[in-house]
Amino acid sequence: MIRINENYLKLQAGYLFPEIGRRVRAFQQANPNAKIIRLGIGDVTEPLPPAITQAMHKAVDEMGTSATVRGYGPEQGYDFLINAIIENDYRSRGVEIAADEVFVSDGSKCDIGNFQEIFGIGNNVAVTDPVYPVYVDTNVMAGRTGDFDKAKGQYGGLVYMPCTAENDFIPAFPSEPADIIYLCYPNNPTGAVATKQQLKKWVDWARANKYLILFDAAYEAFISDPDIPHSIYEVDGAKEVAVEFRSYSKTAGFTGLRCAFTIVPKAIKAYTRDGRAVEVNPIWNRRHCTKFNGASYISQAAAAATYTLEGKKQVRSIIELYMANAAIIRESLIKLGYKVYGGVNAPYIWLKTPNNLTSWEFFDMLLTKINVVGTPGSGFGPSGEGYFRLSAFGKPENVKEAMQRFAKLK
Amino acid sequence: MIRINENYLKLQAGYLFPEIGRRVRAFQQANPNAKIIRLGIGDVTEPLPPAITQAMHKAVDEMGTSATVRGYGPEQGYDFLINAIIENDYRSRGVEIAADEVFVSDGSKCDIGNFQEIFGIGNNVAVTDPVYPVYVDTNVMAGRTGDFDKAKGQYGGLVYMPCTAENDFIPAFPSEPADIIYLCYPNNPTGAVATKQQLKKWVDWARANKYLILFDAAYEAFISDPDIPHSIYEVDGAKEVAVEFRSYSKTAGFTGLRCAFTIVPKAIKAYTRDGRAVEVNPIWNRRHCTKFNGASYISQAAAAATYTLEGKKQVRSIIELYMANAAIIRESLIKLGYKVYGGVNAPYIWLKTPNNLTSWEFFDMLLTKINVVGTPGSGFGPSGEGYFRLSAFGKPENVKEAMQRFAKLK
Repeated sequence: MIRINENYLKLQAGYLFPEIGRRVRAFQQANPNAKIIRLGIGDVTEPLPPAITQAMHKAVDEMGTSATVRGYGPEQGYDFLINAIIENDYRSRGVEIAADEVFVSDGSKCDIGNFQEIFGIGNNVAVTDPVYPVYVDTNVMAGRTGDFDKAKGQYGGLVYMPCTAENDFIPAFPSEPADIIYLCYPNNPTGAVATKQQLKKWVDWARANKYLILFDAAYEAFISDPDIPHSIYEVDGAKEVAVEFRSYSKTAGFTGLRCAFTIVPKAIKAYTRDGRAVEVNPIWNRRHCTKFNGASYISQAAAAATYTLEGKKQVRSIIELYMANAAIIRESLIKLGYKVYGGVNAPYIWLKTPNNLTSWEFFDMLLTKINVVGTPGSGFGPSGEGYFRLSAFGKPENVKEAMQRFAKLK
Repeated sequence: MIRINENYLKLQAGYLFPEIGRRVRAFQQANPNAKIIRLGIGDVTEPLPPAITQAMHKAVDEMGTSATVRGYGPEQGYDFLINAIIENDYRSRGVEIAADEVFVSDGSKCDIGNFQEIFGIGNNVAVTDPVYPVYVDTNVMAGRTGDFDKAKGQYGGLVYMPCTAENDFIPAFPSEPADIIYLCYPNNPTGAVATKQQLKKWVDWARANKYLILFDAAYEAFISDPDIPHSIYEVDGAKEVAVEFRSYSKTAGFTGLRCAFTIVPKAIKAYTRDGRAVEVNPIWNRRHCTKFNGASYISQAAAAATYTLEGKKQVRSIIELYMANAAIIRESLIKLGYKVYGGVNAPYIWLKTPNNLTSWEFFDMLLTKINVVGTPGSGFGPSGEGYFRLSAFGKPENVKEAMQRFAKLK
């Protein structure tokens, strides 16, 4: 008799964004004339710039020509892209990464969701709270947690590290063991960044305890402060204990194209029950080659175009557009008396809900009163309760109008 | 201390195709003038036809235009593609599939590798022998097997169902429980097909025992015999017990583009330890939405183009080219006295090695004496020993030359 993986039955219904979608659809149906402005889901809104679409047209032509058609590519990605990554994302910042430490994929959500598979079920997992739900849910599916405790809003057996205004959204080391630690800076959802000194403490702590850091750097391109590291490998020793996840989704508008990459340094070790050290890189390589068949050649050609002179310039100007949105949101809300965080080195603005409203109460109020959609902080974890996320991805005119509506709400 | 998933340490080194690659590279380096003909890996060789490249150019232009750019799509795939699948792949054959039973993805290898995750570790798994290695390796990684037994060439705890010339490459039901059964018809590697009557027996057996069939139909487009089912759902009752995996890779030359889909009927149930029935479809949906972020819009637009009038015609003519290759290989080898199977409803020709050579001995002989690369049958499992796979994917002139070289070998 076929048995279900009962860990899936522990998952709480309604992944955050579907629930937002349901409420927005219901409101729109009841109010067909309402002009809803969406600053909720972190999806890009600008079209792909010409350097990227030109590269894709060229790639399409190659695929339609006998001499240049490409079938299965290397599962790890094409050399032309891997070399561009090494040169532009790492060497330019003083970090040396080897070609076989780079794994190109179809998305960072996939990579960071799948990566935990190669580690034992018994590992203790630590996540920040609030947190991107994928880190938590994939560990629930794998069986690394107990049941969900509705009163606490937490899964048993998972180490939650609260991030609030009180600790500047940089958590303290947990007192429990934390064999696998998920960190994300610039942070989704809080928009906080970590300094080199702060990251160094985490790296040293992981090295001392033989822990592993899964470092989500999907938003590194939004960093404006020159002192903030873009890669955890800018910190000495990080190559021994940190895997880094990067994405073209937010940085270059690839959410509909699907391309990302993960760095798995060869110095990282994990251990067998009898204490033998095993290299993690070849194990991930085996997993990647067995359960994945390479990213689309068209998407890889597009990703490579983001590193050309023209591509860099065009991508940069889109990021500046989004960050100008972030500045408008940030400054408008501060003027209106909100407590506001993030939005300087990250495309997310994290605000304290007014009048002690819960996150969902504030969501419903924004939706129904001013027809603006944001993301309830409590959807990212119990410490997100009383907070709210606004995203800088949007048309500037919509962002401005949303802020005018906020002014009326006040 | 971070612990590795020790199941990965059970995996045998050298996934089949990398090993072939290594031997071919070594030979080519030692013999730089040898003109090697590859009939080994099942990768397509024809360029994408115009209907598909035109659709991709259009999709690229949409992505570069503000009014039409698409960000995150539905994780399950766009409606335009799902509707085309339902209409062309199923309704046209008398099968009704609902839109929310279709899950578009970036590859069938990914889907069939990932699908086992949603079932308990304790399930017994049955695979044909020989078999596509991904079915086995992903279950090893998940912990559903014991160690590899080098003498037997098998993993402990896995049910192997021998497929040889003696049983026409359709296995008998195993005597052990087989909660999850992997079937692939048209078969990779043997090129065998299953009739409706044969599939009906498997479906009835699965229904009687509450087993689940994972049916890999990646090669259905190569079926020429009108009586052979293209989908397992052409068999009554299959929707209760079978998940079907389809791919555009071989059928439309998408190996470098990445698009596939999986059908998960809502009637399929799996069971908790206390015997409660759980619908499998929403569980897979949760997995798909949590660990995957949708296939590239460009690839989905390309896939939809395969269903247009022009697209169908152009794709069909490429399949006919490959199947003409298959006929040449088949007939040439029969003339030369080989025992040959497959190649009529499948792009693979499965042959008995002459003179009791092992599969790898025959591989090395072909490589060194006539510079032709094929795939050793033993790489697909112990019952593949003494067999050899040739693929019909190749330029017709190369296939013809390979057959002339075979004649000299004899």
